[in-house]
Amino acid sequence: MDPVRVGILGLGTVGGGTVSLLRRNAEPLKRRLGRALEVTRVAVKDPSKPRPVDLEGIEVGTDAESICTDPNIDIVIELVGGVDNAEPLVRKALEHGKPVVTANKALLAERGNELFRFAGEQGVDLAFEAAVAGGIPIIKALREGLAGNRIESVHAIANGTANYMLSRMRTEGMEFAGALQEAQDLGYAELDPTFDVDGIDAAHKLALVAAVAFGAPINYEALHIEGIRSITREDILYADELGYRIKLLAITKNGPGGIELRVHPTLVPQDTMLASVEGVFNAVQVVGDAVGPTLYYGPGAGADPTASAVVGDLVDVARTLGAPPEYRVPYLGFRADGMQEPRWAPVEEVETEYYLRMQAQDQPGVLAQVTRILSEEGISIEAIRQKEPRPGDTDVPVVLVTHTTKERAMRKAVAAIDGLDVINGPSQLIRLEEVDAV
Amino acid sequence: MDPVRVGILGLGTVGGGTVSLLRRNAEPLKRRLGRALEVTRVAVKDPSKPRPVDLEGIEVGTDAESICTDPNIDIVIELVGGVDNAEPLVRKALEHGKPVVTANKALLAERGNELFRFAGEQGVDLAFEAAVAGGIPIIKALREGLAGNRIESVHAIANGTANYMLSRMRTEGMEFAGALQEAQDLGYAELDPTFDVDGIDAAHKLALVAAVAFGAPINYEALHIEGIRSITREDILYADELGYRIKLLAITKNGPGGIELRVHPTLVPQDTMLASVEGVFNAVQVVGDAVGPTLYYGPGAGADPTASAVVGDLVDVARTLGAPPEYRVPYLGFRADGMQEPRWAPVEEVETEYYLRMQAQDQPGVLAQVTRILSEEGISIEAIRQKEPRPGDTDVPVVLVTHTTKERAMRKAVAAIDGLDVINGPSQLIRLEEVDAV
Repeated sequence: MDPVRVGILGLGTVGGGTVSLLRRNAEPLKRRLGRALEVTRVAVKDPSKPRPVDLEGIEVGTDAESICTDPNIDIVIELVGGVDNAEPLVRKALEHGKPVVTANKALLAERGNELFRFAGEQGVDLAFEAAVAGGIPIIKALREGLAGNRIESVHAIANGTANYMLSRMRTEGMEFAGALQEAQDLGYAELDPTFDVDGIDAAHKLALVAAVAFGAPINYEALHIEGIRSITREDILYADELGYRIKLLAITKNGPGGIELRVHPTLVPQDTMLASVEGVFNAVQVVGDAVGPTLYYGPGAGADPTASAVVGDLVDVARTLGAPPEYRVPYLGFRADGMQEPRWAPVEEVETEYYLRMQAQDQPGVLAQVTRILSEEGISIEAIRQKEPRPGDTDVPVVLVTHTTKERAMRKAVAAIDGLDVINGPSQLIRLEEVDAV
Repeated sequence: MDPVRVGILGLGTVGGGTVSLLRRNAEPLKRRLGRALEVTRVAVKDPSKPRPVDLEGIEVGTDAESICTDPNIDIVIELVGGVDNAEPLVRKALEHGKPVVTANKALLAERGNELFRFAGEQGVDLAFEAAVAGGIPIIKALREGLAGNRIESVHAIANGTANYMLSRMRTEGMEFAGALQEAQDLGYAELDPTFDVDGIDAAHKLALVAAVAFGAPINYEALHIEGIRSITREDILYADELGYRIKLLAITKNGPGGIELRVHPTLVPQDTMLASVEGVFNAVQVVGDAVGPTLYYGPGAGADPTASAVVGDLVDVARTLGAPPEYRVPYLGFRADGMQEPRWAPVEEVETEYYLRMQAQDQPGVLAQVTRILSEEGISIEAIRQKEPRPGDTDVPVVLVTHTTKERAMRKAVAAIDGLDVINGPSQLIRLEEVDAV
């Protein structure tokens, strides 16, 4: 049979990795598919730029749009990134009946609903495994492997840069700024690290994961997002003493107030699989009503791992090229007419445990005042520790962990505590998740 | 659209779980598929036996074969187990154009090649996610999610019972017999525990995993299998002191001598994800040339987790009912004409590290003799420890860990060591795998 002709938009890290991988593994890929996968065109910004990838036999140009409309291209891989750049190209390809494989989490988090609808109207695929957790086939697991389940919760370490920084803060005793500098020096973090350290990248991924987990429209707006800038070495140390690690988690969960969508630093018990994920690795813990807790672990970024996800999608899409849509897996696992808008839980209605670090004046009665406020809000305390003051400091750090309580009550209590004369606020509040017995 | 009519053969733990799950999650399943999945018939040995599952509206009978030939059944789920029982039923269903979903690892490990060939001739599906690692969608990950990769190795904790026993031997200081008794009391191990503790169950799963990982025919005969009966509390303790845990691993690997297929107790470094898998959980670590190391973790057995895998397959199979075969994923990920018989590495050609425990007489020169023998076989030593004799014992345990060496050389060396007057053989030899930096 004729080869499947692939056009790639963008030849950065992932694009280069994809071209290399398709060449290197052409033989086993053909054994899988019965047809060759052949990159025939790529679009780049600067064709004269030297690239560490063999482009022989590939037409290299600057006109991305012409690839999307080229009748000799069967499948388009979108790797240009960005939202406003990428959207018209993806639309153009879909409009011309070409399935699209993309790694663009921002695009789908923000415009995915419209794009999936349009792809459905055109009757072609729009695949995005590479947009979430790099090489870990987590979209496929949620969308197909666990299709028998009602998903109860997903807890993901979805940003390798933030995880690397938190690992280094713990093992090397670094503060945030030092860990960030190191991550930048190593090329893990961008010069503008906002997407990684402020939780935005993890949030984009979570928006997609939640849609696939719950058969709900993508709702990036409903997300509560906090990054790791406020986490101190001290918090990591105290968490450690209490038996926890601090991780930037992306969490979606069918909670008492509806579907929760939140990205924030989180204490997780040290003896869980999630806690043991160190460095730039990603991991996704999924609890289903039938399967119970499962976990998926691997490299969350990088040329080769992301190319692995792109090519996995490419094989799926190529296999069903021209097939009636009903034979294909729906984009988000649920059919368009089976998607349901859930109640999205406001963060105030989230129920979880909390770690609270206060700076207290070293005088009698402080703990009594703090515990009275918590008790008035119906919050019970699981553990409380008074720490040594830091050298030259008159304040005494007091750290406590609560039992499960509602965010609204907790916030009210912290505001009251920070209003006490004997507390030098603002206190540090970090959520704590038991993440099941995994 | 009309419901998909499902017939189930066997209503034990997994069959009951499957019926319950299909009822409980009928609504989201219909949102995924656009059709209801309806169990219309089940075959059991004894229809009068009370069962903890709602069978209303389901025709319960004893004639399994008549379900396989029933024109009103669209898909057959085979859960009768056994090889000689199950094979004719599966064939009958395929012969009548019905796709089959099965959890029967023994059947496929021993007769899979013929059954997949026959299913291919009949143009219908034969799905088996539930046969490996319970609820973990590992077959889908290997077959589809990681399709872009050449798989380099798979290391799996694939038998929860054996893993539970090894966990208990370590944490409770039990010997094998006590751990087995406990596992039997808890219902984890059968009265005849051979399949679990002698590695046979793990071997059945590995035979399937290797076929999917390498696009090779299933070859159960090529497997090297050792169970955990010979593992002592002492070995677990010494391994711990050296920084390792002992796990029953199912390993397939593209090694220097060809594709390795082996199930045996294995030392793995304590700080790896695999080492931290405790109790009845399963985990599968897969290294691909592009993705690098990934790991999949979850419950490896039980009614609900296994039903999760059965229903996941059922959704896939139902979606492509009647679709031309080229639109469906090949049974083992590679097309029938793309399967290749590899060189299977004889276990003598495996290269790995080893843990060796000897009982030495407490006299000078013993270590010199042992190390001379190892050196003559070109085996270098990474660590060596002489232990205190056990109370009342005159022998001194000597434990060593080697660098990577060929199994053939290691066996020759151990035979020579056990021939020494100063060694009370047979010595204990356990393989050690670094399982990459995961």
